[in-house]
Amino acid sequence: MRGSLLRILRTADALALTVFFAGNMLLSQQPTQSSTGKTRTEKDLLGEKQIPADAYYGVQTQRALENFQLSGIPINHYPEFIQAWAIVKLAAAQANTDVGAMKPERLAAIEKAAQAVRDGKYQDQFMVDWYQGGAGTSTNMNANEVLANVGLELTGHKKGEYQFLEPHDDLNMSQSTNDSYPTAIKVALILRNDKLVDELQKLSASFRTKGDTYLKVVKMGRTELQDAVPMTVGQELNAFAASLDGEIAGLRQAEKSLYVVNMGATAIGTGMNAPKGYAEKCAAHMATLMGKPIVPADDMLAATWDQQGFVVYSAALKSTAIKLSKISSDLILLASGPRAGLNEIDLPALQPGSSIMPGKVNPVVPEVVNLVAFRVMGNDFVTTIAAHSGQLQLNAYEPVEGLSMMESQELLNNTSKLFRTKCVDGITVDEKVLAHYMETTVGIVTALNPIVGYEKATELAQEAYSSGKGILEIIREKHVLTEAQIQDLLDPVKLTNLDRSKYVNK
Amino acid sequence: MRGSLLRILRTADALALTVFFAGNMLLSQQPTQSSTGKTRTEKDLLGEKQIPADAYYGVQTQRALENFQLSGIPINHYPEFIQAWAIVKLAAAQANTDVGAMKPERLAAIEKAAQAVRDGKYQDQFMVDWYQGGAGTSTNMNANEVLANVGLELTGHKKGEYQFLEPHDDLNMSQSTNDSYPTAIKVALILRNDKLVDELQKLSASFRTKGDTYLKVVKMGRTELQDAVPMTVGQELNAFAASLDGEIAGLRQAEKSLYVVNMGATAIGTGMNAPKGYAEKCAAHMATLMGKPIVPADDMLAATWDQQGFVVYSAALKSTAIKLSKISSDLILLASGPRAGLNEIDLPALQPGSSIMPGKVNPVVPEVVNLVAFRVMGNDFVTTIAAHSGQLQLNAYEPVEGLSMMESQELLNNTSKLFRTKCVDGITVDEKVLAHYMETTVGIVTALNPIVGYEKATELAQEAYSSGKGILEIIREKHVLTEAQIQDLLDPVKLTNLDRSKYVNK
Amino acid sequence: MRGSLLRILRTADALALTVFFAGNMLLSQQPTQSSTGKTRTEKDLLGEKQIPADAYYGVQTQRALENFQLSGIPINHYPEFIQAWAIVKLAAAQANTDVGAMKPERLAAIEKAAQAVRDGKYQDQFMVDWYQGGAGTSTNMNANEVLANVGLELTGHKKGEYQFLEPHDDLNMSQSTNDSYPTAIKVALILRNDKLVDELQKLSASFRTKGDTYLKVVKMGRTELQDAVPMTVGQELNAFAASLDGEIAGLRQAEKSLYVVNMGATAIGTGMNAPKGYAEKCAAHMATLMGKPIVPADDMLAATWDQQGFVVYSAALKSTAIKLSKISSDLILLASGPRAGLNEIDLPALQPGSSIMPGKVNPVVPEVVNLVAFRVMGNDFVTTIAAHSGQLQLNAYEPVEGLSMMESQELLNNTSKLFRTKCVDGITVDEKVLAHYMETTVGIVTALNPIVGYEKATELAQEAYSSGKGILEIIREKHVLTEAQIQDLLDPVKLTNLDRSKYVNK
Amino acid sequence: MRGSLLRILRTADALALTVFFAGNMLLSQQPTQSSTGKTRTEKDLLGEKQIPADAYYGVQTQRALENFQLSGIPINHYPEFIQAWAIVKLAAAQANTDVGAMKPERLAAIEKAAQAVRDGKYQDQFMVDWYQGGAGTSTNMNANEVLANVGLELTGHKKGEYQFLEPHDDLNMSQSTNDSYPTAIKVALILRNDKLVDELQKLSASFRTKGDTYLKVVKMGRTELQDAVPMTVGQELNAFAASLDGEIAGLRQAEKSLYVVNMGATAIGTGMNAPKGYAEKCAAHMATLMGKPIVPADDMLAATWDQQGFVVYSAALKSTAIKLSKISSDLILLASGPRAGLNEIDLPALQPGSSIMPGKVNPVVPEVVNLVAFRVMGNDFVTTIAAHSGQLQLNAYEPVEGLSMMESQELLNNTSKLFRTKCVDGITVDEKVLAHYMETTVGIVTALNPIVGYEKATELAQEAYSSGKGILEIIREKHVLTEAQIQDLLDPVKLTNLDRSKYVNK
Repeated sequence: MRGSLLRILRTADALALTVFFAGNMLLSQQPTQSSTGKTRTEKDLLGEKQIPADAYYGVQTQRALENFQLSGIPINHYPEFIQAWAIVKLAAAQANTDVGAMKPERLAAIEKAAQAVRDGKYQDQFMVDWYQGGAGTSTNMNANEVLANVGLELTGHKKGEYQFLEPHDDLNMSQSTNDSYPTAIKVALILRNDKLVDELQKLSASFRTKGDTYLKVVKMGRTELQDAVPMTVGQELNAFAASLDGEIAGLRQAEKSLYVVNMGATAIGTGMNAPKGYAEKCAAHMATLMGKPIVPADDMLAATWDQQGFVVYSAALKSTAIKLSKISSDLILLASGPRAGLNEIDLPALQPGSSIMPGKVNPVVPEVVNLVAFRVMGNDFVTTIAAHSGQLQLNAYEPVEGLSMMESQELLNNTSKLFRTKCVDGITVDEKVLAHYMETTVGIVTALNPIVGYEKATELAQEAYSSGKGILEIIREKHVLTEAQIQDLLDPVKLTNLDRSKYVNK
Repeated sequence: MRGSLLRILRTADALALTVFFAGNMLLSQQPTQSSTGKTRTEKDLLGEKQIPADAYYGVQTQRALENFQLSGIPINHYPEFIQAWAIVKLAAAQANTDVGAMKPERLAAIEKAAQAVRDGKYQDQFMVDWYQGGAGTSTNMNANEVLANVGLELTGHKKGEYQFLEPHDDLNMSQSTNDSYPTAIKVALILRNDKLVDELQKLSASFRTKGDTYLKVVKMGRTELQDAVPMTVGQELNAFAASLDGEIAGLRQAEKSLYVVNMGATAIGTGMNAPKGYAEKCAAHMATLMGKPIVPADDMLAATWDQQGFVVYSAALKSTAIKLSKISSDLILLASGPRAGLNEIDLPALQPGSSIMPGKVNPVVPEVVNLVAFRVMGNDFVTTIAAHSGQLQLNAYEPVEGLSMMESQELLNNTSKLFRTKCVDGITVDEKVLAHYMETTVGIVTALNPIVGYEKATELAQEAYSSGKGILEIIREKHVLTEAQIQDLLDPVKLTNLDRSKYVNK
Repeated sequence: MRGSLLRILRTADALALTVFFAGNMLLSQQPTQSSTGKTRTEKDLLGEKQIPADAYYGVQTQRALENFQLSGIPINHYPEFIQAWAIVKLAAAQANTDVGAMKPERLAAIEKAAQAVRDGKYQDQFMVDWYQGGAGTSTNMNANEVLANVGLELTGHKKGEYQFLEPHDDLNMSQSTNDSYPTAIKVALILRNDKLVDELQKLSASFRTKGDTYLKVVKMGRTELQDAVPMTVGQELNAFAASLDGEIAGLRQAEKSLYVVNMGATAIGTGMNAPKGYAEKCAAHMATLMGKPIVPADDMLAATWDQQGFVVYSAALKSTAIKLSKISSDLILLASGPRAGLNEIDLPALQPGSSIMPGKVNPVVPEVVNLVAFRVMGNDFVTTIAAHSGQLQLNAYEPVEGLSMMESQELLNNTSKLFRTKCVDGITVDEKVLAHYMETTVGIVTALNPIVGYEKATELAQEAYSSGKGILEIIREKHVLTEAQIQDLLDPVKLTNLDRSKYVNK
Repeated sequence: MRGSLLRILRTADALALTVFFAGNMLLSQQPTQSSTGKTRTEKDLLGEKQIPADAYYGVQTQRALENFQLSGIPINHYPEFIQAWAIVKLAAAQANTDVGAMKPERLAAIEKAAQAVRDGKYQDQFMVDWYQGGAGTSTNMNANEVLANVGLELTGHKKGEYQFLEPHDDLNMSQSTNDSYPTAIKVALILRNDKLVDELQKLSASFRTKGDTYLKVVKMGRTELQDAVPMTVGQELNAFAASLDGEIAGLRQAEKSLYVVNMGATAIGTGMNAPKGYAEKCAAHMATLMGKPIVPADDMLAATWDQQGFVVYSAALKSTAIKLSKISSDLILLASGPRAGLNEIDLPALQPGSSIMPGKVNPVVPEVVNLVAFRVMGNDFVTTIAAHSGQLQLNAYEPVEGLSMMESQELLNNTSKLFRTKCVDGITVDEKVLAHYMETTVGIVTALNPIVGYEKATELAQEAYSSGKGILEIIREKHVLTEAQIQDLLDPVKLTNLDRSKYVNK
């Protein structure tokens, strides 16, 4: 290809990253080189480094960019995570100012920088790999360095003039990676949970709308894939909605486990170097910035190594995945056929289904929901094993927990939207097929239990199966019920007890 | 050994099963044979069967005993599960009577039977294997049959005289396996959760008592296993307590997801054959019997296949396991040595540690806590995959979910008690070792950040490491602080900010 | 019930344990009490203990029985594990004698004891809980103590006269728990793998027999549950067989990873206290005793902590579980109905399917295969996390790996037999249903691709679907093919290319 | 940032993708738009679509790009997967020509196209999301369309002139997605396995080189983190190497499970539309192109849905991850300190370790190895659940299996290199610390077992521990051994039995 190709990866996101695939052009530039080739010098514990002159990050980010080239997934792959850092650093600066540790002019610079980052600017400066040792130190320093340099520029200084705003002493004031990193993950997860819940609510609503459309269309229910008793299509679809509502409530409940932050814990929870009162102020500022009831942990030492909040939230994502997978698999079953399957419903055709079988249309959307669900379940495993592997005052494996959960949120969010718009909204029901099943079924014999007893009902069912007849035919032949009784007691619609559900539009 | 050996498996349980290991004596009896050899005849859909005359179970249990000889774990392995069935069947009978479907004399018989089973009698009659196809039908029928026959005997009839009390028509009235089976699992889990929470609270209290004992004993905190900053032993142990309290709260929260039951759903949630009003009454009776706010599900169709309650509760068990594992692993680390390890604490010696190394004492209790934790995590996996595998109106894989969660509860319960009584209560601290670490550490240099800045503090730390000196020595040599400042700013006890924690006894 | 109930748990096993459920009788005996109440005194590092006079175990087993009352699953739950200890201890004694470290009369006593244990005697003396700290030390000492006392008795001494045969110095000579425990697990797994493979071969043969019966019965194949192209029932069932053969080969391959043992490694792999030449001799004796090519590890240090053998074998069990689960789920699908499902095949009815729905028969055997498969997958998770948690020269979590794999073997073995005898052997096919699907299908249109091209074939398929007609009707209407061509090119049997498979009986 | 930033994601790869992060610039272009805005028209079953004029892909790729915008991970994220498609399509075309189904001029065009793609050209045209329903149909069609249009251009035609080379009829001749997709995944995994094995061999060699450097440096071995018996640093490090060699062998063994392909199976394994002889020819051509013994499956129906090959290979990746994680965690332990830890070894400092604690250097490389290992374990879970979820003649969830395994390979590969170059190669040992542990240890008392018996040795050990003395001091005080005996029997170097290992350079 001579030209180039532009692609918006996640068009659903307000801050969608644009990625330019420059294809087979092999470039020689390293991340350390600026587009102009100019550099500035910075130093740390390990010595001096050249930094690209136009880079907003500094020496520690530079080291991390060189050390960790592992996954190709930079931290800005999830834009809310970058916004989260702006929120955390701003809240810390405000709290530091409140308790007299930070001068107002430095706060002002940080405010400017944080606002710019929250507005989606400078995303490309947050480039360290999600996979990094050091429990997130490189990510924290990436945030400290970029916010410092952005703040410097926005207040009339040059990048690197750290005497006016310093990555450690100002941006990291009263903080450690060990409090700010897990807190930033929590903030990002909370921000994204709102989106995910919103998308799931729309999906639930779509099922309910569809369910109400087919509220009184009778069909056979199945347990263990064997014919059971009658129900309506509306009941089936509304149950999907109700059950998704349960997951939404679960995600909301799990979100609460992320409200407790350890800002003020600093290195291990003792709060060394954090002024008294800072922790409470910082949480309060975060609460204001986010509109969520963020609170400081009661026991800061526990809060610094404890992964329960992540374990709980990850489990809620997994639960949601299990639910979406179950619903998708049901749709695949119900849409099976069209000639040698259940064929009760039709899913919208998105694309030709086969490279070899003409005319075949596959349930591609429910299938991709399953793919995503499996990945989300796997991500919960990752969080489990990472959470279990902490030692003493810290768990150094939070980066892979954060990545796993953010990926799960993103995949669930995007896929829920696809599921709704390209599948659920367009479901149609083949009422002739359903009626055929109802006519031939034996399952309504269950309604005879209270009248003739389980044992007698069993005999009738057996006779129907062995003779190939319908159960009504048997009932009539044997005069088990009068026609009036049949109308009254075996009317499939009545048997569905539609009126009992709180969830049904009456 | 010629004789025999009696062993109480779970002495902690009020209803401990006694298991007789008859060793290498090869018996020819089948479960179908009574001790007297006499039988009675029962029949079902598939024909007649001989039942041991003194067995309280009936034909369907008999079939299941023959069909499912898979794991050797009968359903009575968890006694609360049997109690749960008595509660479910009693509540159903009460509700059926309330709505006029059941005659009072039949309720009276069921009440007698249920009380006897709740008292722990007839446990040995609930013998079907946990592993069974049919979504728990065999278990439900085991309960229906035993309660019927017990009820018959307790009201002056003979076993098998079902005209007076019938397994299907009375014990299973207004029910299906598909509502009563998951409900019985929920009841059992709730009953056992109380015990587990109680045991975890005792464990937490043990850590707190121990923590308060060593509240002001200073030690080095470690992050990523590298020396960090000072803390106290009390802070470390109290953090374990605080963090366990979080799991207890999590288990309590998750328990709520089990309060919603689908009694009244019958086969698929439409409530076929369940009289109007029955569902609400049944849940209310269960609430009274259990002292828990049991409620009927809003959407009974969803509730009949939805596994969210189990997924959520299983995740809480897993989270608890992760926590116990983390704490145990920390104790193993802190007790490492005694000569070539950290050697900060001593765990009580339970048994010689090695078959080859004389004098070695191993951390056997924290190790077994880990073993249990791994199994519990594995059990959550089992629940995950089973929950994901449901189809249409039912999930037929609830038996393995129920088994997994009950095993996890039992293992966590027994192990928490062992952990407390044989390990945590007896922890002692080697204060000399701790003092030595404090004297040589460089970590308190962090306290200099607000005074000299991160960069200067780094230089001091590097000099200490490269020279092998203590940081105080360097500070004095370089006159960084006066002696008064050192006393004021670098006092390790002050640096731990003991007063800030809400959890510390002041 | 007043009496008692005897039940053989695993009748398939030659050494079936008999378990006596004494029901609600609450006994006061502790495991420490003999049936006569008499005791003897033994002592160890921690002091003296009273041992039941008729117990063959000694002081360390006694401590473990008291310390670990966690799961109620004693080590003798898997009889081959006890046989394995006899093999390991005997091979060690033989090797010690070979290299001159053990006197022949002590070997003679050990040989007698080992033979008795391999014959299934004294099973009831191996009672420590599978869940134990200490990396299996209690189990190793249980074996050492019982074999010593049995050896003493069989050579005319009394239990406890250890001057003639000592648990540590003789039974554990040149050994440590750290070599003998993982080796005993390997031996048990190898012994049981033979049984499992045998059972899976029978299952495969059952599918092949059934497949050959229906070799030429044409049916619609389905991909993504959508109608695809024709195949035969025999092809479908034979593919199950072929695919199970793949798992059998996988289990055999994985078994090889268990042949490498670290006997001679002693505590950490340096072989301290093991005479030169012992390791090679010991492995050779094991090879003879087992009839398997057991070899010593090249790097004994690695072999002492490395869990790869277990990880690999556990993965093979998981793979087998995945396969059985897939096959079972397919059978559930194909047997769905009978009126509102695919209804292609009938599975034998084992028991009434429902407590509420008369006449319903559920696919209980494939369902229980799934239950077992989920547990086996969970057990692989347990082995994964345990294998990952080792530290330095040992992995202390082997007990839960051993338990997990033995449980998986047992469940797979028992369930495979059930699957074969109560399900696969009895499958019947509903040829009328299959013929109906073939008549109405559009799927054979694929065969037109080489003749008319994919695009044209797609048009024909679309017309069939939109009109509701069969594809042959369309082909005839449009004169796409002559009748002769239809016979030649679209004969469903020809389209299945039955002759191409190496696996088909020609 | 005003400028732009270029970053090579995986510099190690010959075909490194260049990704341009255009930052906060929100573009309006859709993937459907060409850079010139011109389009051409293509159509399929669902109707006409506009395709960017300069795109080499066609209508079905276009639909997939629009339908699946889920993860942002295009299939070209793993370049070998694109090469794999070129190999598969070329082998198929060669086999089709061999059996007379394809004309030589069409083969010639495909050869040109395949060569160009194997050379790394046109990578940017393979852009569909890894997450896709349809079992990989979109990916197969992406390959068919791009190879067709490239072939057209390279033989003097225009894109879209399919009368000369057709995506379905030529590129997909005798194929289905259901054979070519899993085969392409296998090819990619095999190609990448070579790289991974190569990198692991280098890592193993690095450990062995380091081990040989410290071959005779004595240290205390530890089991259950308690002091055990002496060993050498070389033994410890060489054991890492030996154990990695085991994983390499495991990966090579598992690779064999990928050699069996189902090319020729077409839709469901019956080989419909594949000429006789094609399957064998196709595998043979693949073998030649890859230099690997690729063979056709014996049972093509099984091979089309069976996931065993993937399950086995994924398990080998997981096993490797477990091993790397164990080794990393050991290094973290051994490097703990520097003052309050084991401090036996030093790892190279890569970056400042803390944003708050001056001078702290963390074990960032072993930590990131753990992060990767956890993800790989999670990926095995994903493959497990996907493999378990297949239905009837196909498993539609292969895309997420392929993605999971390729991600695992990439992460393991990149991280192994980092581990070696930035950590293992630079390990140094603190011999003073080791000597101190040896002087104070009691552990060598084990060597007295054969001399004084386990019981007496235990007494000596206890006295050492309770008195705080070294064991040699006790031995001398009590005249247990003469000085000559001490030199002979308790020399730590002798006790390590260095000469016994096959793996040690003698």
